[in-house]
Amino acid sequence: MTNPVLVEVTRGDRVESRHRGAVAISDAHGKKILTIGEVDASIFPRSAVKAIQALPLVESGAAAAYGFHARELALAQASHNGEPPHVDGVSAMLSAAGLDETALECGAHPPSHSGSALELIRRGKPPTQLHNNCSGKHAGFLAVARHLGIERRNYVTADHPVQQMVRAALEGLTGVAHTPDRRGIDGCSIPTYSVPLAALAHGFARFATGVELSRERAAAARRIYEAGVSEPFYVAGTGSFSTDAMNLLRGAALVKTGAEGVFCAAIAGLGLGVALKCDDGASRAAEAMMAAVLARLLPEHAEALRRWTHATVATRRGVKAGETRVVEEAFAAAR
Amino acid sequence: MTNPVLVEVTRGDRVESRHRGAVAISDAHGKKILTIGEVDASIFPRSAVKAIQALPLVESGAAAAYGFHARELALAQASHNGEPPHVDGVSAMLSAAGLDETALECGAHPPSHSGSALELIRRGKPPTQLHNNCSGKHAGFLAVARHLGIERRNYVTADHPVQQMVRAALEGLTGVAHTPDRRGIDGCSIPTYSVPLAALAHGFARFATGVELSRERAAAARRIYEAGVSEPFYVAGTGSFSTDAMNLLRGAALVKTGAEGVFCAAIAGLGLGVALKCDDGASRAAEAMMAAVLARLLPEHAEALRRWTHATVATRRGVKAGETRVVEEAFAAAR
Repeated sequence: MTNPVLVEVTRGDRVESRHRGAVAISDAHGKKILTIGEVDASIFPRSAVKAIQALPLVESGAAAAYGFHARELALAQASHNGEPPHVDGVSAMLSAAGLDETALECGAHPPSHSGSALELIRRGKPPTQLHNNCSGKHAGFLAVARHLGIERRNYVTADHPVQQMVRAALEGLTGVAHTPDRRGIDGCSIPTYSVPLAALAHGFARFATGVELSRERAAAARRIYEAGVSEPFYVAGTGSFSTDAMNLLRGAALVKTGAEGVFCAAIAGLGLGVALKCDDGASRAAEAMMAAVLARLLPEHAEALRRWTHATVATRRGVKAGETRVVEEAFAAAR
Repeated sequence: MTNPVLVEVTRGDRVESRHRGAVAISDAHGKKILTIGEVDASIFPRSAVKAIQALPLVESGAAAAYGFHARELALAQASHNGEPPHVDGVSAMLSAAGLDETALECGAHPPSHSGSALELIRRGKPPTQLHNNCSGKHAGFLAVARHLGIERRNYVTADHPVQQMVRAALEGLTGVAHTPDRRGIDGCSIPTYSVPLAALAHGFARFATGVELSRERAAAARRIYEAGVSEPFYVAGTGSFSTDAMNLLRGAALVKTGAEGVFCAAIAGLGLGVALKCDDGASRAAEAMMAAVLARLLPEHAEALRRWTHATVATRRGVKAGETRVVEEAFAAAR
């Protein structure tokens, strides 16, 4: 089976480029509410499962011990832009656990937010590991290790106790055994496990509702969910789809991107989870797909979501040359 | 018909993302030497046809009148990086025609070369139209208008005499009528026309050989071809595939990228033209595809081309996590 074309990029009256993909929407009992394409095929969710990866931070008691509230729990599930409030927030998380930037093992890269990247350059400063979009997640991992009195070094390796806790959380939510044959290395050096798209959607429906979870896990998931939707800036940042979409939806959904064209969402009010992947890994298409899903599930926001379902392609002088648009028929026909 | 997967991005032992595409290789008489996918479908070649778009600059006598040699003819067919030698070169071309940056109608954007973009920021200077990757092509258009005594304003519009000359050159080489229904606006504001991939490959085989062209046109094409392969830096710049590949091939092919995953090449020694498009518009995949084509046609360079046919995907700490690699079987099976 070949996944269908879900997003077209047009120029003039013609389609210039095409993006294929798959979409799974599930309820908390694993019932497939809507599917497009091969939803039983496995994909690497990458950063789209950071909210689930943050469960041990709450469940271990580390978040409470170090005084982590909504902003810190938002940063722990973030792919942040490296803007000053993100960097300062992660630095404070590390400090609360008696650590600093040198404890991180995620590697450094320039801030995703261009203004913040430029400011570093103007000041002649190289980016640090704090600017890495995953630094909040890593600060959370380190807090767990410190709180439990575990050796923190090499906390990114698959056999480290913290990564074993993270893996167990992912297995518990998705119902999929995260075996070594499913493992790859993520860009921030931690393991990432390939799992079926439908299982990811099921996991996020459980995450959104607490259904099929222990009372403790359900409460932890609720805290992380509430932190994300109440502090969207700390989950991504200025101009990011996840932040802008969550601001737009006013708490109706926790929305999170992952590298290589992945998106997951948890929609508490509907009791649904969403997972999607653009086959070729393009962000522009994954954003349009997620916007189309949100427009279908939350139709009161459909008009506002058109900035992503029908995004303008412009010339260097700002004249409209085409559109990046969802294939409406593919979404309308999906059951 | 669905185009086949030609490039896979792996992580660990698994395929994470997939890129589909089509490839046409033609001789100068239009015989299809090798095809993959839908080569009779039309695509926007974008900047991949700049060498053909430069024909009026030579044929009109403007290049000779203004003293344009290899570097200027390389810039006229370039998608350059906006590095200082590119900017200075285009500025000198405009100056030779009695013009300056304000005559350009391509719009401004930051240099594609990050070091040059940073240097502008450090100096607190905004990018100008000279930094636009298309500024050399536009300087060529303006030189034609000035040399022929044509009103230069609005030289980017489809009905301007210069664009009519450019369109006639494209029609002459590809054999396809560039009718208004095929027209879109390119990022630099000039028209771009959607044409079959096979016709583009045929056009570049004619361009490489002079076969089926007038003596004057064949000579102009030869000059532009020689300019490109002798001055690869001025066709793109530091770290660009087109420049690095042409340096590697030591004049064996004129190779040029276009936006949204397009590549064209002219291979004089073999009398062949190449055109390819990645369906989803990804540069990483189009580069791998073009490298695979070059490796097949010029096998003495296959080993050196592995840096693109099998490119490393690394973590932020520089550890190999996967590969962006061509699907060898798809290329091996093609006839």
